[in-house]
Formats: sequence, C-alpha cells, structure tokens
Amino acid sequence: MSAKGPVVLVRKETTPDDIHGMDVAKGILTAVGGLTSHAAVVARGMGRPCVVGASSISVDEAKKLATILFEGKKLTLKEGDWVSIDGTLGEVYLGQCKTNEPDPKSHDFAMFMNWADEFRGKFGVRANADIPRDAKQARVFGAEGIGLCRTEHMFFAEDRIPHMQAMILARDEKTRKKALQKLLPMQRKDFAGLFQAMDGFPVVIRTLDPPLHEFLPKRENVMVDIAKLPHAGSKEKKQMAATYGVGAGELKKYLPELLHRVEELHEFNPMLGHRGCRLGITYPEVTEMQARAIFEAAVLVAKKGVKVIPEVMIPLVGDVKELENQKAIVVKVAEEVLSAANLKNLKYYVGTMIEIPRAAMTADEIAREAEFFSFGTNDLTQTTMGLSRDDYTKFSKQYEALKIFKADPFAVLDQHGVGKVVEHAVKLGRKTRPDLEIGICGEHGGEPSSVEFCYRTGMDYVSCSPYRVPIARLAAAQAAIADQSKAEVQRTA
Amino acid sequence: MSAKGPVVLVRKETTPDDIHGMDVAKGILTAVGGLTSHAAVVARGMGRPCVVGASSISVDEAKKLATILFEGKKLTLKEGDWVSIDGTLGEVYLGQCKTNEPDPKSHDFAMFMNWADEFRGKFGVRANADIPRDAKQARVFGAEGIGLCRTEHMFFAEDRIPHMQAMILARDEKTRKKALQKLLPMQRKDFAGLFQAMDGFPVVIRTLDPPLHEFLPKRENVMVDIAKLPHAGSKEKKQMAATYGVGAGELKKYLPELLHRVEELHEFNPMLGHRGCRLGITYPEVTEMQARAIFEAAVLVAKKGVKVIPEVMIPLVGDVKELENQKAIVVKVAEEVLSAANLKNLKYYVGTMIEIPRAAMTADEIAREAEFFSFGTNDLTQTTMGLSRDDYTKFSKQYEALKIFKADPFAVLDQHGVGKVVEHAVKLGRKTRPDLEIGICGEHGGEPSSVEFCYRTGMDYVSCSPYRVPIARLAAAQAAIADQSKAEVQRTA
Repeated sequence: MSAKGPVVLVRKETTPDDIHGMDVAKGILTAVGGLTSHAAVVARGMGRPCVVGASSISVDEAKKLATILFEGKKLTLKEGDWVSIDGTLGEVYLGQCKTNEPDPKSHDFAMFMNWADEFRGKFGVRANADIPRDAKQARVFGAEGIGLCRTEHMFFAEDRIPHMQAMILARDEKTRKKALQKLLPMQRKDFAGLFQAMDGFPVVIRTLDPPLHEFLPKRENVMVDIAKLPHAGSKEKKQMAATYGVGAGELKKYLPELLHRVEELHEFNPMLGHRGCRLGITYPEVTEMQARAIFEAAVLVAKKGVKVIPEVMIPLVGDVKELENQKAIVVKVAEEVLSAANLKNLKYYVGTMIEIPRAAMTADEIAREAEFFSFGTNDLTQTTMGLSRDDYTKFSKQYEALKIFKADPFAVLDQHGVGKVVEHAVKLGRKTRPDLEIGICGEHGGEPSSVEFCYRTGMDYVSCSPYRVPIARLAAAQAAIADQSKAEVQRTA
Repeated sequence: MSAKGPVVLVRKETTPDDIHGMDVAKGILTAVGGLTSHAAVVARGMGRPCVVGASSISVDEAKKLATILFEGKKLTLKEGDWVSIDGTLGEVYLGQCKTNEPDPKSHDFAMFMNWADEFRGKFGVRANADIPRDAKQARVFGAEGIGLCRTEHMFFAEDRIPHMQAMILARDEKTRKKALQKLLPMQRKDFAGLFQAMDGFPVVIRTLDPPLHEFLPKRENVMVDIAKLPHAGSKEKKQMAATYGVGAGELKKYLPELLHRVEELHEFNPMLGHRGCRLGITYPEVTEMQARAIFEAAVLVAKKGVKVIPEVMIPLVGDVKELENQKAIVVKVAEEVLSAANLKNLKYYVGTMIEIPRAAMTADEIAREAEFFSFGTNDLTQTTMGLSRDDYTKFSKQYEALKIFKADPFAVLDQHGVGKVVEHAVKLGRKTRPDLEIGICGEHGGEPSSVEFCYRTGMDYVSCSPYRVPIARLAAAQAAIADQSKAEVQRTA
C-alpha cells in the first residue's frame, strides 16, 4: 500500500489486467476469492505472499482507500500506509513487521532436498514459467525443465498488448500478419531467455490458449462508455480516450467499431469457446508465428553451445485431427528454420495437453501424433466435473460444508472422478506409444496428494509454479517411499 | 410478419425471452444461427416451420422492418407483409404460398408407423414436452411417455416470471418461500395436465436446471440503463420503467439494487456454473416446492382413475452425494403427500440425468441411488468435447470444412467420443442395477443415426420433440432390423 518502498497491492479481486501490478508488488491482499482465485494462483506462481478473501475489507480503487471492519471499528488504510501480510497463516497486520527472505541456496535446505531426491529417483519435477526470470528462479529451486510456458502471458505486457489488439482487430490476413510480425521478435527473445535458463533441460511451450476477447476491453464497459459519451465533459472524454489509447475526437467513431468486434468475439461460455488449438486452426498464421519464434530462439541459443530441448504443446485438443493440423504447421516451420541454420539434428517434440474428456477417451488415437501428453488438470477438472473454476466460489462453501466435495477440486485433484479420466488416458496413450512422455502442468502439480497420484499413475513428471518445486520434490520422494514399502509388504507377505 | 392473420416471427436471432412470440407464430425466420440454435431447437420442439441463418436479411426490430439483399437488390419487408417459409428446404418466399397441414391421424401414416413399430419391439420412443398441449400432440404422434419435462419453461410465462424474479431477488428463506408458494399451484396444474395427457405412460419431470440469472434482465442492459438514467427524458424513463415493471420514480433506487443482485449471480461460464442440482442443494426449498407440485398433481389425477407414473429427474449430478441429497427431499415430500391422500401404493421413481463426464465415470456409484438414467447429450457433448453449443458457431464452418468434425456434434451424436462416455456409463450403471431404466433426452434422441446408436448401446428408449417422434419410431425400427440382419449373418457364417 506504499507509494515508495515495498508495495502491497490491495484489491477487491484481481484480473489478468493486474498482472504487472502484481509483479511489482511485494504482497497481494484481496477482499474476495479462495485458494484458486486469480490472485492466489498468480501470487503462488510469482512466489509473492498473498492473502485472499479478507472479506472485512472494502476497497475503493478510485480513491485509493481500503476500509477494514475490525472488532466493530472501522479502520481506513490509504496509499502510503504500512500493512504486513502472512500468506501462510492468512493474516494481515497493520504496520511494518520484520520479515526474513528465505534462502533456497542455504546448506541445510540443499542437504534436505538432496535426501528427498535420492528417493525420488527418475520421477521429474519441472516448473511452470512464462518468462526468463521465473525460469531462473525455478532452476534455483531445483526444477528439471519447464513443464508449461503460457505464451499468452507475454502478450499482456504494456509494449505488446497494442500489437495483440491490432492482430485481433485485423479484418484480413494481411493486416493480421503485419501485427504478428511485430510480436515475433518479442516472443523470440523470451523463448531464447527460457532456453538459456534451462541449459539442457526440456522446455514445454504451449501455443496461444485463451479466447481473444481476453485481450480486448470488456464488452459491458464499452457499452456503458458509449451510453455516457454524448453527455461526457471534456475531462471525462480525455480519461476515456486514454483508456482506449485513441484521441478524444476519435471516440465517437472508434467505440462503436470496437464494440462491434467485441460483440463478434463475445462468448456465452468462453471456457468452452473459441480458444486453444481452435484459434490456431482458424488463424494458422498465429501458430506459424509462434513456431517460428520458438525455433529461431532455439537456433540462437544452440549456436552459443547450449543444449536446447523444445517441446511444442498444442492446447485443448479433443480429436487427433486437430493435433495433426497444428503439428503440420509446427513441423514445417521447424524443418525450415533448422535447415537454414544447419541444425537439422536438433531434436524437438510436438505433443498435446490432455484437458478435455474427449481427448482422454480417444488418447490411443491422439498418441499416434503426440510425442508427449501433459495433463491440464485445471481445465480437465472444469470439463469432467462440468464446473467452472471462477463460478464454483458461488456455492463452494455449501458444497464443502455438506461434504459433497472433500476439498476444493481445483486445489486438490479429484482422484475419484477426474483421476479416473487421467488413468484412462495414460493407459490408452501408452498402449499406442509405450515410451510416451507424460506429465501434469495444472495447479495440482504442486499439491502433495496430487503429486502422489501422478507418481502412482505412472507419469514421468509433475510441473508446478517455481516456488512449489521443493514441495513437489518432497512429495514425490514420499510417494516413492510409500510405493517401495507397499512392494516390500507384498514381497514379505 | 402479419399483424392480423398468421404471423411469421422475423428476428436476428431468438432468445429464451422470445418463447411466447414463437409460440403464437406460424413460422420463424432468423438471420443468424444453425441447426442447433435456439430458434431451430425450440421451433423443432413446437413443430413450427423455421428457417435459420438467412444471412442476407437484416432485421430492425425497433422499426419492425426487415431488409433483404436479393440478387443485388434491397427488398424491404414490413409488419403486415406476407412471407412464406419452407423449413425443410430452408427457403423463404415473398408472398403467400399455398400450404397443407400434415395429418398424423391419416390411415396411410398410421399403417406405415404400425409396420415400423412391429420391428421396433420393446424399444420405446418418448417425447420431450413441457406443457399439456405438447404432451397431447406427442400422444398423437405415438409417444409412449414423456422423457423430459423442463419445468423452467413454465416459469417464463408472463404471469409467472414476476414470482420467479421475486424468488430470486429474495434476501432470505422466508421471502423466497413466499414467492415459491405462488408458483406451486401453477406448477401443480401443469403437471396434472401432463399426467392426464399421458394416461398411464411414464412422465419424467426434471427439477429446476438453468442458472437463475436467465430469469433476470441482462447485466449489460441494466448497466447501460443506469448510465443513461441521469440524462433520460420523461418518455424514455417511462419506457425504462415499463421494462422493469416498476414506477419511473423508483428507477433511481431500483436499478442499482437490481444490478447488485444481477452482479452477484453473474457467471463467467454459466453452463458450468450454479445450476442443475447445485441450485436444489443450495436452495432446498425450490426442490421441495417442485416435488410437492409433482405429487399433489399425481394425487389429483390418480383420484380420477388415471394411471400416473411420475419419474423425478435430478439434473447435472456429478457425484452420488448430490443425488442422495436431492432424492431425500423428493422422497420425504412424496411419502408425505401420498400418505395424506391414502395413495401409498402409487409407484414413483427418482433418477438422474447423465450429462457430465464425472457422472459417467462414477455411474456404478450413482446407480446405487438412481432408479433411472437419462442421457442429457446436449450438455454431455458440451462437457465431453469442452465445446459450448452457443459458441461453436464461431468456428463451426471451418471445423466442418476441414473435416475435423464429420457433422455438427449437437445435431448428430459424436459416437466416437461422446458415445464412448455413454457406453461406459451404461456398462457401469447396469453393473450395479441390472434392470436400470436408461434413455436419452438430448436433441440427438430424434436424429436417426443417434437413435440407432442408442438402440445398439442397450438403452430402453429415446425421447425427442413431439414432431420428431415418428422419425425416431422409424429409426428405431431400422436399427432393430439392422441388428437382426447382423445376428443372422453371424449365425450363417
């Protein structure tokens, strides 16, 4: 909450637009949300202390004030006031508490983790990391590769989102390709940073996944601004114009056009809409640009003598034909770029997320094309349970109180339901391709009971946010020990 | 398009609010949409000729004008002009064409259907019908029961929606129960009409399914009206007030309150949100009211000497505990109402929709509680494929052109993917309860290749809109013949 010095971001709830605010904050505090809310998930990924669902706080973001009801009294926090938070206990303190930075390079920590790794054996632990800085952090915590790089997170940066929007607003392929050309060098640079940081470990890069309207202003906001515009004063108009990045005089023409495109992209259930490989199939030039950025980056880094292992991952595949379509684009670009660089021997892999039930039910066919599977258990939980992660909070308290769900299924993998789908897919996939590399990259990859499930199911690795890598390493060791003890009990019986 | 005489409803697209306009129309014509758009699905259910996706038409609903681009010329249709449509060919004619009413009671038709029924044998054909009139129509077409009554369709009627809204806007259980009390006699009357019409055949009644915000004004419209209100003239205010059913003077206070509740109910992915049995679990008084209406209606009709077979169906179950919870409410009310009426021998059934993959994966457990399964293949297709029916149209053309999907999976059951989930559930369900009654009530129940699949999978019946019942009877006969021929080939081989 301080304007100078360390900042705690205080919000009712966070949205993808807040990513940069969260990035510069030392901690995050929200009034609503649970363990798997946007704030919690992103903060966990960034290793930021975070307290969510502090429901006694009301936040007035315009006035930069937070009001807290505490023992019947109303306290007010303003920008510049000190507040301290404990993300583990979920506590908030007024004033400045003394804090210690954890040290993953300390001798004690390293010794303990080495003990765990001895038992963990071949079972891998990778990290989900989108930018080179996170990848470096992941290595510090012992990650053996990147299990998920969400390329779209790169597009939300301030210098990139205008090009992304231009790409989306383009009415024809030529204009779209022009906008993509601006994004190519930025993606290439990021990928090069990831390959460099991973120095010989594999890097799984997922092609564009979210629906395009996530990159545009919200439909209802544009509608409200259109309703307000005829009555707006010049100051208001100026503010509006700044929001949209156009001149105040252009608003009258620009807003209805923008609304039209936003309406076209509007979806009733975006989670089940035009996203994932469906984007790459309808706009092949997007997949092509991303493949080019990946392999040009691989060439750059390989030429420095660093071993590079790119794994290109196609999201939201439900039918092998979708993967065939996208794989053809990736392979074509890869061969072209690698030939030109005389690096034809550079080995790369093309695989897929398994995140919708149809993919699991037809995993034997998908494994014909896929060189690896990665379970996207966030979406697989949403589709298998017919349950939206963002909407579940509406009735989660009652469901957990009535013990209908033992735990939040987005935090702890629902082994009894979603787990059955995972097991089915592993079985079918390995039937077609016995050496199929299989991992998990959903939030569950860092949750101990879910890690144990992945071990038991015969996966090769789990991938989780960098700060959860030590937990996953430990959980995997525990799973290995439990498995050995079981085997011994059976031998002696 | 005529103000007097037969009306053709012309719209850009239809929404659930149009249900009564569609009901009084002789035909429906829309500018956008496909085979499974709202207009097409509802018109099919009502047996109305319907042409959707006539993209050369622009509709100005406020001015009651439709403009048609035809061979480079712009034609204008206004209210009162004649237009004729052919729903089978998808053709639109200016002017009045001569039409013939089909006669399902004719001798030729009856003879043909009897031939089909001889082969069909025990495999049943039921109809989806929400109101007594549709149930009677279904009987005329030979339906042997109702496979799906969507109780929420009854709530959209003009005299009912205010009570439904009062129920939703209620802040406490007492106010909510008061509103429900007003709905009870209306539901009872409808159910009595269904039992009466079905005269000894079973009637499957589904408890409340859609998310509650479907019954409230749209969020973005309320937001825009709030933005407009300070600048609105008295005429505009009056119009607004009429829309919301409050006085013009109340708008200033009412709109923000309404928005607040609409915001609370707003969902990111309503299809995967707070709906189905999740509503009945968080608001048990709703299930209780509906069960009471069902069994009081059953008593009323049974006392007239008509055989009544109620089957109460709980939607969106994913875990047996959800069904246990709702079944307990239904059974308690049933025992109470039937005892009081000295009708303890009246046999009723409690079962569930199978419409999310988790239910299929745990169907053995669910069959412990469920006395019947009915596959809701619309939602099961959405969840298994991770594909929203309403949003699929955004990329359906490309997907079908690239042959990624052989056909629209919402029109023709995806046997290769969704079908595997169905087969799995049938196998597990019958393992627990060998005599489990199994049917289908999704749109696919009236599509020939899907009917054949249901026959092969060992289901007991299909259920479809009344006007598709003859098609389903014929398709079932063809499936039976194909099955016999196969058996004979195997015997002689």
